[in-house]
Amino acid sequence: MTTERQFISDLAQRFPARPPVEVGIGDDGAVLDCRGASCQVIVTDMLLDGVHFDLRSTPPELAGRKAIAVNLSDLAAMGCRPTAAFVSLALPTRGTSDQDDLVRRLYDGIASLTDQFDFSLAGGDTNAWDGRLAINVCLTGIPFGQQPLLRSGARPGDAIFVTGALGGSLHSGRHLSFLPRLAESEWLVRHTQVHAMMDISDGLSIDLHRLVDASGVAAELLAWQIPVHPDARGKSAGGIVETTDFCLPDPGLRAALSDGEDFELLFTVAPEEAARLNQMATQLPARFSEIGRIVDGRGCRLRITPDETRDLPETGWQHEF
Amino acid sequence: MTTERQFISDLAQRFPARPPVEVGIGDDGAVLDCRGASCQVIVTDMLLDGVHFDLRSTPPELAGRKAIAVNLSDLAAMGCRPTAAFVSLALPTRGTSDQDDLVRRLYDGIASLTDQFDFSLAGGDTNAWDGRLAINVCLTGIPFGQQPLLRSGARPGDAIFVTGALGGSLHSGRHLSFLPRLAESEWLVRHTQVHAMMDISDGLSIDLHRLVDASGVAAELLAWQIPVHPDARGKSAGGIVETTDFCLPDPGLRAALSDGEDFELLFTVAPEEAARLNQMATQLPARFSEIGRIVDGRGCRLRITPDETRDLPETGWQHEF
Repeated sequence: MTTERQFISDLAQRFPARPPVEVGIGDDGAVLDCRGASCQVIVTDMLLDGVHFDLRSTPPELAGRKAIAVNLSDLAAMGCRPTAAFVSLALPTRGTSDQDDLVRRLYDGIASLTDQFDFSLAGGDTNAWDGRLAINVCLTGIPFGQQPLLRSGARPGDAIFVTGALGGSLHSGRHLSFLPRLAESEWLVRHTQVHAMMDISDGLSIDLHRLVDASGVAAELLAWQIPVHPDARGKSAGGIVETTDFCLPDPGLRAALSDGEDFELLFTVAPEEAARLNQMATQLPARFSEIGRIVDGRGCRLRITPDETRDLPETGWQHEF
Repeated sequence: MTTERQFISDLAQRFPARPPVEVGIGDDGAVLDCRGASCQVIVTDMLLDGVHFDLRSTPPELAGRKAIAVNLSDLAAMGCRPTAAFVSLALPTRGTSDQDDLVRRLYDGIASLTDQFDFSLAGGDTNAWDGRLAINVCLTGIPFGQQPLLRSGARPGDAIFVTGALGGSLHSGRHLSFLPRLAESEWLVRHTQVHAMMDISDGLSIDLHRLVDASGVAAELLAWQIPVHPDARGKSAGGIVETTDFCLPDPGLRAALSDGEDFELLFTVAPEEAARLNQMATQLPARFSEIGRIVDGRGCRLRITPDETRDLPETGWQHEF
């Protein structure tokens, strides 16, 4: 079985970016040059019944909303605002008493976010089949600033920040109702200089590994600085791999590192900007927590006490194919 | 059950195009203004195992190829060349002996077209589930000329043309191997002035109805001018509704009108351009057939003999939800 990391790396090698694509496979979205004008950013995510929501317990409005929200989170991670949505549906013909009602409610959820963030549903494709509901969303966006923000810009010395708090999103249902961090993304673009940014969809551990891999650097997290969400005080939904040489005793911290579906922003800024951000804390649209530092090298370490660090395993929601 | 036509009309009303979207729901693709630069066109189509191909008999390479090809056909219909592809996969975990092999072969089919038409696979999303294979493709493109071509530009007096020949695509397997009409689209943009264009995916009858509806005009087809594909001499795969007042005796012509999955271009030009196109027939990259005329009014008529016309029913592959 190929891991997702290997799979994406293979794909990126096999399908190199050709003009006008400036950034292709491997970031939260792709960047297309638009013949000298401002660039266009495109993101896509597919949500499946039984994997990303469960229609037996999830109201269709929230399934439709989540399909848009996860893509908005990707755009926020790229420092972009949304311009248009393209929604493809595979609608179940079995086990659905009223298909018109299902469709209406899915689009109610979609409309709640196109209205809130003022962009168009500009196209899509609707099919019916003898399978479960699948929703694919493709969003276009344009940068809040001059350029989109990438994962690959982190530099040694940078401070690592995260918005909000992490963990417990799946079992609390927060993954269905979270507000994509577009306001925070715009604030960051306008008030500071972000070096690298991505969203946390699969878990802080695995996503931080992706960020440092893309940037060619390493990271050290301070365990006691990581904001644990109140939802994570319950049972962790994450599938953390407890290796013999690394087992965190604090279940809340484990959840924050590995649960995933947080859809918070993970970003790095130069040290002097970090000091400024921390001073501006009260003006910020959301809680920003400084959780560690970018360093030279490869991989991620977790400082669990001031005197002790451990390798941070790549855990979280890494799917196997 | 809502018809697709009503569904799309409802969606377009509910989700009006907001800037920078210039053309939203209802054409082969959406048109986005790029801040003064050349516009961007975006198309999307989802293909499902058991609906658009059948993995029990379809090699995965052809399923992957078709997912790209149907979207290229939409871009050709908009008078655009492709720039980037975004591919989302829902991969089956059951009934697949070797998932890596399935993925590799899907991407082989995808690569055959990204290489042939020189554009990037720039992103996507890959998931696994306990369902059948679903493939969503979103393609971006830019016009061969100054502007994309829409369905809505047909004018009374225009001649109606179609590329290639129609019918029998599904049962012959042609729907898996057709060459999207990008060369023909580019040729048309460079050598004539097309008023309206779309691709024939659901069948000439239903797609012509869509074109005249979008343009606010009517059409009259000449039955004996419609190019029937040799594949249509066999069994028609179409679900033509034989109403008591309209039954075509010629099964080949019925197939050409209603089978769908032809992925040929349907377009209209002014009468003087039609004469010129017919004279240039030998220089054309593919066979172009003049099959009728745009007239004032609403709806579509089929002239079955020089003296007799009938209303052309909206048949073909109209899905019900």
